[in-house]
Amino acid sequence: MSLSERIQSADWKAEKHVPVIDCPDSVKADELFEVKVSIGKEIAHPNTTEHHIKWIKVFFHPDGEKFTYDVATFEFNAHGEAVAGPNQGSVWTHHAGNFWMKIKKSGTMYALAYCNIHGLWESSKKITVA
Amino acid sequence: MSLSERIQSADWKAEKHVPVIDCPDSVKADELFEVKVSIGKEIAHPNTTEHHIKWIKVFFHPDGEKFTYDVATFEFNAHGEAVAGPNQGSVWTHHAGNFWMKIKKSGTMYALAYCNIHGLWESSKKITVA
Amino acid sequence: MSLSERIQSADWKAEKHVPVIDCPDSVKADELFEVKVSIGKEIAHPNTTEHHIKWIKVFFHPDGEKFTYDVATFEFNAHGEAVAGPNQGSVWTHHAGNFWMKIKKSGTMYALAYCNIHGLWESSKKITVA
Amino acid sequence: MSLSERIQSADWKAEKHVPVIDCPDSVKADELFEVKVSIGKEIAHPNTTEHHIKWIKVFFHPDGEKFTYDVATFEFNAHGEAVAGPNQGSVWTHHAGNFWMKIKKSGTMYALAYCNIHGLWESSKKITVA
Ligand SMILES: [Fe+3]
Ligand SMILES: [Fe+3]
Ligand SMILES: [Fe+3]
Ligand SMILES: [Fe+3]
Repeated sequence: MSLSERIQSADWKAEKHVPVIDCPDSVKADELFEVKVSIGKEIAHPNTTEHHIKWIKVFFHPDGEKFTYDVATFEFNAHGEAVAGPNQGSVWTHHAGNFWMKIKKSGTMYALAYCNIHGLWESSKKITVA
Repeated sequence: MSLSERIQSADWKAEKHVPVIDCPDSVKADELFEVKVSIGKEIAHPNTTEHHIKWIKVFFHPDGEKFTYDVATFEFNAHGEAVAGPNQGSVWTHHAGNFWMKIKKSGTMYALAYCNIHGLWESSKKITVA
Repeated sequence: MSLSERIQSADWKAEKHVPVIDCPDSVKADELFEVKVSIGKEIAHPNTTEHHIKWIKVFFHPDGEKFTYDVATFEFNAHGEAVAGPNQGSVWTHHAGNFWMKIKKSGTMYALAYCNIHGLWESSKKITVA
Repeated sequence: MSLSERIQSADWKAEKHVPVIDCPDSVKADELFEVKVSIGKEIAHPNTTEHHIKWIKVFFHPDGEKFTYDVATFEFNAHGEAVAGPNQGSVWTHHAGNFWMKIKKSGTMYALAYCNIHGLWESSKKITVA
């Protein structure tokens, strides 16, 4: 059994754990564009000390190349934990983030997300360099 | 000598490594608000295989509490590295990110950024819960 | 195309990028045991500013359960970068680490490693709770 | 108020949150040596879904240089969380790790650790290149 078989996928409109990648379908070579990755775009995911999204990683594979690149990691670290007890704290981090990147070639973006009790989930999106 | 003495600070308008925290000065308790953290808002920082911003971490300290919370980490992971050689790759991650958080109390946000050759830099911003 | 198809695997005795998991085949429930994860156990991998192993992540899937757990992340962050230029620095982090964990059930350990120019590589190892 | 003032320090023999750095006092230039970083060497720290050590980061500052290097990050990610509820899971990661590094010059190692409810704690250790 490989790790690959442990990475779950589904339609994000029906399964709340699937990361959604929002960015242009087409971009210009060497120009920064914005990417939003999020969990729960359609169906909200809990955010409690006991159950929350811990991170989303983003990768990019240029068409025709052999290897995949690690682009960005977002860690969502505050979930209401406190000395007073779980969910009694003053701070919560939401499970979404935006960043900027640039590419030279068309390729595929991949997002990999982790829920602390529901494991690994992935999605992907094609981007074309016009 | 403590690590604290190794964390550099300066005015971000004059020193390109200082992380800038852009978010409202005043927010509502328990309502998500957007935070942007970035390097180079006034003076651009390089982004090459040999010299780049690797990460920004965000912390929050609620007023009157004893401990500081880790809120979020952004890792900027692609800097043009490739089998063909440094800066020959197809992907670059820019050194800025947005995320959403909620708080229950006024407090101070801290950003800590790391340049792979110029070390650790910090900044902070007060947020009031109205 | 899914991210899963981008995760490469091979025999670590023949392919230097494959992470090796060294730990007991059989452990006691709820007792800490040591795990070593490493790259290059048989064939050395370079460690330069331009080409290096950035991280190894470790996951565990308990037999008969539905979800996989994120166990540990090792980031290897220093690769000779310096103001004086690539590979002129004073510090290098080697691509191996040890940690301790405990489990309640038999299952499978997974390691996922990332080379900054050769992408994602995985391996796995069964552990039995005696 | 700077982040630096939020990083707590104390004697690790009396305060369980302080990271302990175990490595040789003296090493050879350009030869790998082993470093152990741990929490709770003298006084145990809890490891539960609600209260645990999330990470330890290690930095190195070469004597006489201007900037500090990020050497390694250890993330301890499993703390008994599960669909069945907090502390009902099958996996726990202990808060200690070993890694290998090499240096060219004498300098100071720094460890920075984070407890999810007791905040940031640091310690340091001098290393001499003989
Ligand atoms: Fe979930
Ligand atoms: Fe710099
Ligand atoms: Fe490689
Ligand atoms: Fe604690």
